[in-house]
Amino acid sequence: MQIAATERTKVRRQPKRANYDRALVHAILDEALTCHVGFAIEGRPWVIPTIHARIDDRLYLHGAVTNHMLRSLTGGIEACATITLIDGLVLARSAFHHSMNYRSVMVFGRATLVADGPEKLAAFDALVEHVVPGRTADARPPSDAEIRTTLVLVLPIDEASAKVRAGGPIDEPDDIALDVWAGQLPLTTTFGAPIAEPDSNGTLPAYIAGYHRP
Amino acid sequence: MQIAATERTKVRRQPKRANYDRALVHAILDEALTCHVGFAIEGRPWVIPTIHARIDDRLYLHGAVTNHMLRSLTGGIEACATITLIDGLVLARSAFHHSMNYRSVMVFGRATLVADGPEKLAAFDALVEHVVPGRTADARPPSDAEIRTTLVLVLPIDEASAKVRAGGPIDEPDDIALDVWAGQLPLTTTFGAPIAEPDSNGTLPAYIAGYHRP
Repeated sequence: MQIAATERTKVRRQPKRANYDRALVHAILDEALTCHVGFAIEGRPWVIPTIHARIDDRLYLHGAVTNHMLRSLTGGIEACATITLIDGLVLARSAFHHSMNYRSVMVFGRATLVADGPEKLAAFDALVEHVVPGRTADARPPSDAEIRTTLVLVLPIDEASAKVRAGGPIDEPDDIALDVWAGQLPLTTTFGAPIAEPDSNGTLPAYIAGYHRP
Repeated sequence: MQIAATERTKVRRQPKRANYDRALVHAILDEALTCHVGFAIEGRPWVIPTIHARIDDRLYLHGAVTNHMLRSLTGGIEACATITLIDGLVLARSAFHHSMNYRSVMVFGRATLVADGPEKLAAFDALVEHVVPGRTADARPPSDAEIRTTLVLVLPIDEASAKVRAGGPIDEPDDIALDVWAGQLPLTTTFGAPIAEPDSNGTLPAYIAGYHRP
């Protein structure tokens, strides 16, 4: 299913890399550990790295009530959440045509505050499960005080687009014969050996021992 | 050497994680492959993922002249460049205290266009060398037309701060004894086996075979 392009989400630069497929947008959001949320205060931009979670067509963000960004967003400021996965370096014969392989998503919209209640609890769980699937079954659930002092915001995934680059370099025809190595260097995120706290009582869960992104 | 904190760069949330050391800010900028640049057009935020390069106290960005962001920035719009390195997942006994280890930098300022000339050429080289150190010695240098059709912007690294989290979870005292595994899952970026183009003539360079970030 396609997301309708708008003035903001219509990809103008390298439009052949654009993709409005909802399933692809969701898959990129789900794989990424973090996003970068932008907002403007008196016309001046801020970009904050934060974790996110998706439930259906909604993107959730959270933070403590003292958080500068979240207090601003709840005032009704427009937000732009950008999610970027880097898949590799692309080495062309010419400096100019060097590139990266990537999958990115931009979501534009007005983030609104989620009131205390079932949606807020579901968002808390989704935020933990987004980073470590299976974790909410083990971790101590949030207390009433923890819920109260944490803001949760929801951004509808209505105005969104993906941009994807894959494959090798696109060199100028005249450069192909140059005696310069050309190709790709794939890049992945690797998770190392878990480090238990000295006073950890639990046994290492399977979802940590075998941790991987979707 | 410390960078003086301003109203924008003074870290309010988790201030003990703040760091204004210029060498640390530079090291984070140099290690990251990409940054997220935010700007506002008519009060509405945009966040664009892009590569960057640093020369001394200057952050360089680039793009084709048709690029939406760069055309906006050259008009004199304020920018915020945020760079984030994720070092690991932090698993607490409580859902609430889950976290990530990270190193991030925010640079605020007014990006200005770099005119054609030696600084622009140095920035081109720096952008390639930032991603693949050693590459400019092999790649075909930019032609006059490529230089002309690419905008380079410079953002002074004057108003900037770093934020760093490291180490295990900080649990509530009452939660320590819970039968829940607690600890860290370290995360690194791994580079795979290089994939040569079928028509690549050059031999695999040492800087690709042994590629690593600084």
